[in-house]
Amino acid sequence: MNYKMTIAYDGSRFNGWQAQKENDNTIQSLLEKAISDMLGEKAEINGSGRTDAGVHAKGQVANFKTKANIDKELFLRDINEKLPSSVAVKSVEEAEERFHARLNAKGKTYEYTIWKAAYNNVFSKRFAFECRGLDTVKMREAAALLIGTHDFLGFSSLKKSKKSTVRTITAIEIKEDNETIKISYTGNGFLYNMVRIMTGTLIETGEGKRDKHSIADVLDKKDRSLAGFTAPAQGLCLMDVFY
Amino acid sequence: MNYKMTIAYDGSRFNGWQAQKENDNTIQSLLEKAISDMLGEKAEINGSGRTDAGVHAKGQVANFKTKANIDKELFLRDINEKLPSSVAVKSVEEAEERFHARLNAKGKTYEYTIWKAAYNNVFSKRFAFECRGLDTVKMREAAALLIGTHDFLGFSSLKKSKKSTVRTITAIEIKEDNETIKISYTGNGFLYNMVRIMTGTLIETGEGKRDKHSIADVLDKKDRSLAGFTAPAQGLCLMDVFY
Repeated sequence: MNYKMTIAYDGSRFNGWQAQKENDNTIQSLLEKAISDMLGEKAEINGSGRTDAGVHAKGQVANFKTKANIDKELFLRDINEKLPSSVAVKSVEEAEERFHARLNAKGKTYEYTIWKAAYNNVFSKRFAFECRGLDTVKMREAAALLIGTHDFLGFSSLKKSKKSTVRTITAIEIKEDNETIKISYTGNGFLYNMVRIMTGTLIETGEGKRDKHSIADVLDKKDRSLAGFTAPAQGLCLMDVFY
Repeated sequence: MNYKMTIAYDGSRFNGWQAQKENDNTIQSLLEKAISDMLGEKAEINGSGRTDAGVHAKGQVANFKTKANIDKELFLRDINEKLPSSVAVKSVEEAEERFHARLNAKGKTYEYTIWKAAYNNVFSKRFAFECRGLDTVKMREAAALLIGTHDFLGFSSLKKSKKSTVRTITAIEIKEDNETIKISYTGNGFLYNMVRIMTGTLIETGEGKRDKHSIADVLDKKDRSLAGFTAPAQGLCLMDVFY
């Protein structure tokens, strides 16, 4: 049987999603251990993609195969009891035998949260990056230039890549209230650090430190040094994976 | 000059709002120390009311008098820098000389958050009480019986009281989504532990452990032992104070 799970985590104290070795303090290892213990067989899970150390998720997706036939309600109750409170399995469902959480992913939505209020962020300090005085009109103008199909190599931490670095961003939404600015990015895939570097670049645009035309320059010249800083991991959250 | 502040705090690690002695780890003492340091004169602040140990606030109101003329923007920046990240002064404004945050309060709204999802509460564990399987239809029916002007002595932890224990609740709203049930209470005032005991009673109604008619019984007989348990402080938040 092949099972698909939706997973949430507070990434603050983890070394990211991707398992590296035993006792590596990654979310994947934690889940594999919990599931292996429950099923009494070694479980390997495929995540939709890795998230960096410190990055959060509300809608990470992963699948695993097992000989066992799982009672879904019982499985959810047991695994959430086994997991620390910083990780939750939100749902589990049967998937087709060929389903693979990474290979079949058609797109993803990430959200970056900026705390802009003049006062302390009392209730969600671990889930936002503090930055004040941003001009969201300028940020929206710059964001519009990122939408579409481009080679995003300049917006990534990849030195170079044998694989294609062309990706399509279908939407960037910037929502603002009295306390936060939330930037959500939807696209068919994102390169290493791409969301955080796009966010750093939009922040610098909002600060008036760079012009929106610099966006086209990064895309054209594919030069990381022309883009903005890498916004801190703590503001980033994987919201949804589409299949 | 008389100044009115709006204050937010994560009450998890405090001994409540009300100052008791020095180094008492209360929010009032922390604010008085910060303001006294900033103004170079001993400041005393009046809160709209005390909140218990572990109770949170998004809209606590307090006032203080000073000979100094405060630059509001500078004051906000400085005091938020001085305060730990679990406390924020959200706004400061001049008030009439006679304004008193407690004596002039006309009403308050409290919100109680219940985590009901089958999986772990990853992002707001400190701000909710976990409770599953509640019937919100039954809870709403019971809540309706609390609305109005009643003697709420039976819904308080007061042994007896020389002062009136009659209060008016103008609204109780119960909102539900996939993860939480939020109960908001608006009234002209609340007795000691009253919101937490009403919440415990509504939870027991939602669990089917008691009938909504027991509400009338508590009000009639003014007997604390007939009401429900005192719901934990961590789910409670002071949202707003009306003047």
